[in-house]
Amino acid sequence: MKQTGVSEEEIFYLLSDAKKRDFSYQRVLSSMCTYPHEVAVRAHMQFIESNMGDFGLFRGTHDLEKQIILMLGDIYHCGSVEGYLTTGGTESNIQAVRAMRNFSRDRGNYDSSEVRPNIVVPASAHFSFDKIADILDMEVKKADLDHEMKVSVDSMQSLIDENTVGLVAIAGSTEFGQVDPIEEISQIALSHSLPLHIDAAFGGFVLPFISANHKFDFSLPGVTSMAVDPHKMGLSTIPSGVLLFRDFEYINHLRVHAPYLTVDTQYTLTGTRSGAAVAATYAVMKFLGVEGYSKVVERCMDLTGHLVERVKGLGIRPVIDPVMNVVALEVPHPTTLRTKLSSEYDWHVSITQDPKALRLVIMPHLDIGTIDMFINDLEKALRS
Amino acid sequence: MKQTGVSEEEIFYLLSDAKKRDFSYQRVLSSMCTYPHEVAVRAHMQFIESNMGDFGLFRGTHDLEKQIILMLGDIYHCGSVEGYLTTGGTESNIQAVRAMRNFSRDRGNYDSSEVRPNIVVPASAHFSFDKIADILDMEVKKADLDHEMKVSVDSMQSLIDENTVGLVAIAGSTEFGQVDPIEEISQIALSHSLPLHIDAAFGGFVLPFISANHKFDFSLPGVTSMAVDPHKMGLSTIPSGVLLFRDFEYINHLRVHAPYLTVDTQYTLTGTRSGAAVAATYAVMKFLGVEGYSKVVERCMDLTGHLVERVKGLGIRPVIDPVMNVVALEVPHPTTLRTKLSSEYDWHVSITQDPKALRLVIMPHLDIGTIDMFINDLEKALRS
Repeated sequence: MKQTGVSEEEIFYLLSDAKKRDFSYQRVLSSMCTYPHEVAVRAHMQFIESNMGDFGLFRGTHDLEKQIILMLGDIYHCGSVEGYLTTGGTESNIQAVRAMRNFSRDRGNYDSSEVRPNIVVPASAHFSFDKIADILDMEVKKADLDHEMKVSVDSMQSLIDENTVGLVAIAGSTEFGQVDPIEEISQIALSHSLPLHIDAAFGGFVLPFISANHKFDFSLPGVTSMAVDPHKMGLSTIPSGVLLFRDFEYINHLRVHAPYLTVDTQYTLTGTRSGAAVAATYAVMKFLGVEGYSKVVERCMDLTGHLVERVKGLGIRPVIDPVMNVVALEVPHPTTLRTKLSSEYDWHVSITQDPKALRLVIMPHLDIGTIDMFINDLEKALRS
Repeated sequence: MKQTGVSEEEIFYLLSDAKKRDFSYQRVLSSMCTYPHEVAVRAHMQFIESNMGDFGLFRGTHDLEKQIILMLGDIYHCGSVEGYLTTGGTESNIQAVRAMRNFSRDRGNYDSSEVRPNIVVPASAHFSFDKIADILDMEVKKADLDHEMKVSVDSMQSLIDENTVGLVAIAGSTEFGQVDPIEEISQIALSHSLPLHIDAAFGGFVLPFISANHKFDFSLPGVTSMAVDPHKMGLSTIPSGVLLFRDFEYINHLRVHAPYLTVDTQYTLTGTRSGAAVAATYAVMKFLGVEGYSKVVERCMDLTGHLVERVKGLGIRPVIDPVMNVVALEVPHPTTLRTKLSSEYDWHVSITQDPKALRLVIMPHLDIGTIDMFINDLEKALRS
């Protein structure tokens, strides 16, 4: 750090210069984040100093947080819902699995000095579950997928053993946007008396707003927790994730004693937490309502349909018919194509792992003109 | 969630109403957070959509992050420094301890199926270390404090055993603002070949800017990692923590494979990360420089000195002579007094655990007039 500070003018010159090196979302078809809604941004600013880490000092912001949880309980069919705003899907998933592990351990279901507990997740689970295995020192067993990239219920069932502390299913997989057969998995969870966490980080703000009726939430009696991310399709600011529990029982297994604060215990992963993101999430959810989100999602689904129609004209097929606004395209040499699209055409896409395919996420920052420009460049890149 | 959205006007009426229920920082003497600097807020806004979770898409913001790490390496005497922006001290501490544990495990220093690894921390360690014990499934051994509330080096040494994977020392304890004898602890770490993490979440933006010369950073050869929080005395926006490592070796033990991103591995705890907080931290550090931060800290230390002088006039003594802008006051019935100050006088303070004392943090949002008003009310509350 320099001895003497530099002028505000120079700093904002440097920041603008840095910003030019960030890709514009208009060129990004690989991200599950997007521009936050302007109402979210305005609310974020108003609460910029608010710290949910000690919410006894910020009772107004904490009221907004409680209202977000209730609004989500309403969408996801859970009157008894409890939860809090996290930094995003990874934290929500860590905490959900930690709650499962601790719940089982605290009940004496396994002897932690002798046994390594495990969870069963779909092979399509986000890589945060590999972090979780490492962080929580647990085994993460991965169940096979069927030809539609949904988890095989039989495979899941066969992996459950006496050290299994919980199950995970995905509502909107990161790679394919697929939804697991959660109704059946809920039954399995109930029959084994295991908690079931739903990773709906992406799907949580998509599935309630599309016409297809996917059962994925607390309406299924086996579902005990959910991760949903307002900073993805919820159009809130970063960091806005939410972890929801069917009831307080699981949260209690996350508590540690918290001295010096206005509260006695803390069940969150982080200490200091952004109250700004709470206000932003509250504001955009109130502003859009079900109708507003439905329009956002319908537009993304229309764009996705348009994209799939156009690539079919090029002889390219999607790995699965898109369930939400995520598409994986079967193209020759996807990794090379991705590099070419980035270096020669300034389009930023990504790659699925198995099968290798070109992955696109059709977020609200895209429009039909941009999709058409992308497809024209894709066609050129495929030919050259 | 309602079917139909409500107007922007109504939303900001509801938000303003919520904000009135948040306590103003002017009445808060218990928080280590404060109003962020206006330059930080402006930068935060400019980068509101930036996501460091996939920094290949946000190369400009990532350059700012790298420059923050270099500026901090400069202050903390480490040319080889590596690190990243976290959500705050808790995440930084989790990740530092996880790196220690994995480093030891990956080298085969203990058999993870048989042994529960441990770390040795001061009894004054932040309660995030209790979370860490639970999350990482480790034992956290707490070393005794001396009469000055510094950790006893003898006690630390006596707790080290063959399953110890690292040591922690505190530069600015949450309760008393005390600094451990880190020079001696560094020697112990070296003699046992153990990594040493410094929790300087609060002290990191205080100690380099005061006249007293505390040795606490990478200038001590045993120190391998540090946690510092720009969103505390660094005057940045939430969430701005930093985890620093002396070199990349430890970070490598945090990596998991990251498909779908522009990077191959991810070593952070969260996935999506606020680029806005990166820009904010960069901006305020550049704007203030060493001279600017020194003025901020000097002012807080002057206010702390004034407060201690005035309470001594009331016959009240601090538990230790303040090392930084944190004061614990020996008062009769501190818990009752705290409640009275809050309910009758609208002053929000906190309580230390052992010994029980009235804890005050003299942050930049306070001024001499506010301190004097507080002491007048404290005097009344003590008498009644």
